[in-house]
Amino acid sequence: MNTKTSEIRLRVIGVIRSPFHEPSGTPIQAALAGDAEGSVEVLDELAAGLPDLAGFDRIWLVYWFHRAEWKGDLVLTPFLDTQPRSLFATRAPLRPNPIGLSPVRLLGIEGNVLHIQGVDVLDGTPLLDIKPYAPRFDSFPEARAGWLDASQVESTVSDRRFHKR
Amino acid sequence: MNTKTSEIRLRVIGVIRSPFHEPSGTPIQAALAGDAEGSVEVLDELAAGLPDLAGFDRIWLVYWFHRAEWKGDLVLTPFLDTQPRSLFATRAPLRPNPIGLSPVRLLGIEGNVLHIQGVDVLDGTPLLDIKPYAPRFDSFPEARAGWLDASQVESTVSDRRFHKR
Repeated sequence: MNTKTSEIRLRVIGVIRSPFHEPSGTPIQAALAGDAEGSVEVLDELAAGLPDLAGFDRIWLVYWFHRAEWKGDLVLTPFLDTQPRSLFATRAPLRPNPIGLSPVRLLGIEGNVLHIQGVDVLDGTPLLDIKPYAPRFDSFPEARAGWLDASQVESTVSDRRFHKR
Repeated sequence: MNTKTSEIRLRVIGVIRSPFHEPSGTPIQAALAGDAEGSVEVLDELAAGLPDLAGFDRIWLVYWFHRAEWKGDLVLTPFLDTQPRSLFATRAPLRPNPIGLSPVRLLGIEGNVLHIQGVDVLDGTPLLDIKPYAPRFDSFPEARAGWLDASQVESTVSDRRFHKR
């Protein structure tokens, strides 16, 4: 394909609040984040887009890894492995477009604020989108998961390897 | 929170090829797309980020709804319902940041091209990211899904309601 790089602009639509202020110790996946609670503050003018999320146990947060700075590496050692893996086969924050995805538990909605559990992102993470989690679209419990299925690493928290500062 | 809107820039890292050239008739979710096959052409210079995807049954495609043009509506009638719903409780392509997510089946990898099945996007859709699908992170078969659980609509394909041209 044509290698000309096109640009797309996004706008920040809110901020994710969490108990985690540094990469070290932040859970690496929502499913591994246990009871950690946080919130999502959506821009006031978008609050009317939220009420029907009530009734969903989980929501997808789509956000910006604002502390990650990709230097062009296409192979890296992910948190859950001891050997290097191809970048797109990992969920590491260092990527050409540092977009993160977390299926967090939705505890409640108050106006423009969503209360969430299983938060695995840094406090202050810029929010890009919210989508409802639907098992009929998103749940494939039997899907094979390559190197992750074979991983022996039991750590469930981050360290500083993928973050600046 | 502060309502000042910040901007973020992304770059297109590839293109999704599919049999669907018009919104009408395009499947509305990968899980509902049946056997429809397509491919993902990643920029040549990023091909080294792909090989370890082998062994994953499914991958997340993160992409740009390039034919959607949001006009500011925060309530809309989704394909799977007959009444209006809050925007962020739907998977409609019209959203402040028109980012799409599809957990497609990975059939094979050839250099910078991924062969996929269950493709639910338009041909030519700009690719933003690829992530491995991992049941331990992404699969929550028992999650309640609000209005979607109650939906009686059986259509599995799109029409023109959310697209320009």
